[in-house]
Amino acid sequence: MFGRVLVANRGEIAQRIIRAARELGVETVAVYSEADADALYLKQADETICIGPAAGAKSYLNIPSIISAAEIADVDAIVPGYGFLAENAHFAEVCRSCNIQFVGPDPETISSLGNKSRAREMAMRAGVPVVPGSPGALKDEEEALKIAREIGYPVMIKASAGGGGRGMRLARNDASLTSGFHAARAEAEAAFGDGTMYLEKFVENPRHVEIQILGDQHGNLVYLGERDCSVQRRHQKVVEESPSPSVSPALRREMGEAALRIAREAGYYNAGTVEFLMDRDKNYYFIEVNARIQVEHTVTEMVTGVDLIQEQLRMASGEHLSFTQDDVELRGHCIEVRINAEDPDRNFQPSPGRIEQFVAPGGPGIRLDSHVYAGYTIPPNYDSMIGKLLAHRADRTRAIRTMLRALDEFVIVGPKTTIGLARKILGHSEFLSGEHDTGFVERFFSSNSAAVSSKGS
Amino acid sequence: MFGRVLVANRGEIAQRIIRAARELGVETVAVYSEADADALYLKQADETICIGPAAGAKSYLNIPSIISAAEIADVDAIVPGYGFLAENAHFAEVCRSCNIQFVGPDPETISSLGNKSRAREMAMRAGVPVVPGSPGALKDEEEALKIAREIGYPVMIKASAGGGGRGMRLARNDASLTSGFHAARAEAEAAFGDGTMYLEKFVENPRHVEIQILGDQHGNLVYLGERDCSVQRRHQKVVEESPSPSVSPALRREMGEAALRIAREAGYYNAGTVEFLMDRDKNYYFIEVNARIQVEHTVTEMVTGVDLIQEQLRMASGEHLSFTQDDVELRGHCIEVRINAEDPDRNFQPSPGRIEQFVAPGGPGIRLDSHVYAGYTIPPNYDSMIGKLLAHRADRTRAIRTMLRALDEFVIVGPKTTIGLARKILGHSEFLSGEHDTGFVERFFSSNSAAVSSKGS
Repeated sequence: MFGRVLVANRGEIAQRIIRAARELGVETVAVYSEADADALYLKQADETICIGPAAGAKSYLNIPSIISAAEIADVDAIVPGYGFLAENAHFAEVCRSCNIQFVGPDPETISSLGNKSRAREMAMRAGVPVVPGSPGALKDEEEALKIAREIGYPVMIKASAGGGGRGMRLARNDASLTSGFHAARAEAEAAFGDGTMYLEKFVENPRHVEIQILGDQHGNLVYLGERDCSVQRRHQKVVEESPSPSVSPALRREMGEAALRIAREAGYYNAGTVEFLMDRDKNYYFIEVNARIQVEHTVTEMVTGVDLIQEQLRMASGEHLSFTQDDVELRGHCIEVRINAEDPDRNFQPSPGRIEQFVAPGGPGIRLDSHVYAGYTIPPNYDSMIGKLLAHRADRTRAIRTMLRALDEFVIVGPKTTIGLARKILGHSEFLSGEHDTGFVERFFSSNSAAVSSKGS
Repeated sequence: MFGRVLVANRGEIAQRIIRAARELGVETVAVYSEADADALYLKQADETICIGPAAGAKSYLNIPSIISAAEIADVDAIVPGYGFLAENAHFAEVCRSCNIQFVGPDPETISSLGNKSRAREMAMRAGVPVVPGSPGALKDEEEALKIAREIGYPVMIKASAGGGGRGMRLARNDASLTSGFHAARAEAEAAFGDGTMYLEKFVENPRHVEIQILGDQHGNLVYLGERDCSVQRRHQKVVEESPSPSVSPALRREMGEAALRIAREAGYYNAGTVEFLMDRDKNYYFIEVNARIQVEHTVTEMVTGVDLIQEQLRMASGEHLSFTQDDVELRGHCIEVRINAEDPDRNFQPSPGRIEQFVAPGGPGIRLDSHVYAGYTIPPNYDSMIGKLLAHRADRTRAIRTMLRALDEFVIVGPKTTIGLARKILGHSEFLSGEHDTGFVERFFSSNSAAVSSKGS
């Protein structure tokens, strides 16, 4: 195991990594921007290094600064978490060239999976269903029109380098495809410096189901059940759960094995997620691999009992997986709610600032991963997530009840939060039925609706 | 199930009961003394009623006030928690006569188990080993001397009505027995209004192992594994865990079945605990039954997945046990640390007052049951426990590591606390070995030792 690692992130995921390392007896070096000088995770690390000003590009995304910090602190490995440099193949490459272990898959794997059309080709080679669409990158508008007519509208135009909903356009006919193709390509070129586009049939009202995978560097791979992330707002996950209400044990095995075939095709090791869309008839379609840990990995930790961040460190240090697929068992049901400092009455714009009062829920079944506390000032520079609240109980109904009482207990005075929205989602009949899809939030909780008021949150 | 219950307690256990009731859809009425007017549990209840001034005897122990509140609020049941009226047979009797369900065993059971010599007789009838001693109440000093010589010194003189270490004396010879007998009897008469005494062989350096039991009103009883509470300071439990490092599966079954035999003998239903001492050779001896929920019930909840407070409500409302002994399975290992507002540098005297900063630990494996928060003022009138921190992991070693990192994270500024002591206990080689006994804390952490300084806690 490593003696000392650098945590190349901030906020709750930096804290999460520090907790895991500490439990393994590994020393941690935390880095921070000037905006995070008072952050809690710095107090929990063994050593801290300032890597630049507030702007992410000058600190958490600044590869030379982070590598310098790692060399000064003489660490064995760098743990990227999610976001920032977590899926940056170049960064992983630089780590390798500096003889520092990058905690994640190798740069070639990150690179090939980061290209969505290449990932799609891998899935097809692995015999995993993909959404019907272009076999690879689109040459031009003409090819897009030809394929769209073949597979039938609606279709989605997507940037190969895309993410976070950027470089995407929905087209329901030739005209909107033509305009959408050019708009999405321009957006992709601006955002990612890469205008490569592909096209897929648009699955109406799908569920989002993803498989957690974990592998060592010796060819051993397991899947750790699925997460259902169908509760999304503008392509951002809001509520996640495991197991999925729409996945049977047989389907879990089938999707898990499909995920592992793709992972083998990609030469994958460390933790990763294979994402699928699922239609009403439970047909599932590969969409992408996230070659990193995800925000919602916590849900899987609760139902499997596996500490995924500790496993990331173990796998990166060269250890063998200490358990097999047969050892993986899902216990109970876990639901996670992301708590964001956002104002539901102002179209969910970020609501940074000082937290005057903070009373966290607790008691049976509750886990809270949060880096904030009474007296902490949320800086305006980064994402607005201030915590992940999890309820783990024997079954879905009990997990929902526990989550609802925990949300009722949660007191945050100062910033506006999404606690009130979460409460309404968890109490909604469609969510309770488990029949919701990715259009659920937009249908019932549009940004102008009084239903999402933060009153009393 | 009840529609509405009154919670006849305060602090963390009042909050615990409110959480359980809320998850069952049961309304709660919280009572409070004038000293608790700002307490958190009042905000979590559906209704609140002030029952008197700060002094416990005038509020939380004031039966007429509590019954009046219950009648005004028109509740179906009263939930006593632990302490205060939880083991008061007279109170349970009054509830019955007012047609309010008391959430606990019936008054006759509480009464007979509350008398320790009668409980001992029950255990003997049930064929459960007891510490050698007087068969029942001692007539006088002469009988005490006779029995002590028969079973051999050292012996412990105990008040039948005793508890909390009062009315107890250790005697290592005739002279100390004579003086101890009179002193203990006087103390018992003053404290409990009952000078009935009995005598037992003193087991040197035992472990404290207790069995959680649960039963419905239809004769169904199960045991939910054991808790090891050998880490004690002046007969007060400091750290609890389940499973016990010194109990094998076979011994668990044997002790569990012994506990159920006593419970059947006593006509027991609802939640209860059968306490045993265990010597180095793993001989176990019944000591008493706690006819109520215990502080450390939480440890059992984590390893069994059973919500004991919800079960208390279900059992009291007349439901049948929804699972059998075969369904009970212990998963992983859980350790609990009691966090008290006490000053280790001043002989653990209470340290009430305002909490200026409160940063709770969280993340995987952590549960916190606490009623305090930044800005809360701990009143000086009640016990000093301000929280129970639990770590639940796959095995004992991991649970200890998780607990240690959680204790390191825990920030409480204002009152002095026992966090620093807990850290030292959890890191001590004797605790790590699992070979510790009830003398462990006194041996290594005497009150004047620098080792228990609260620095950095």
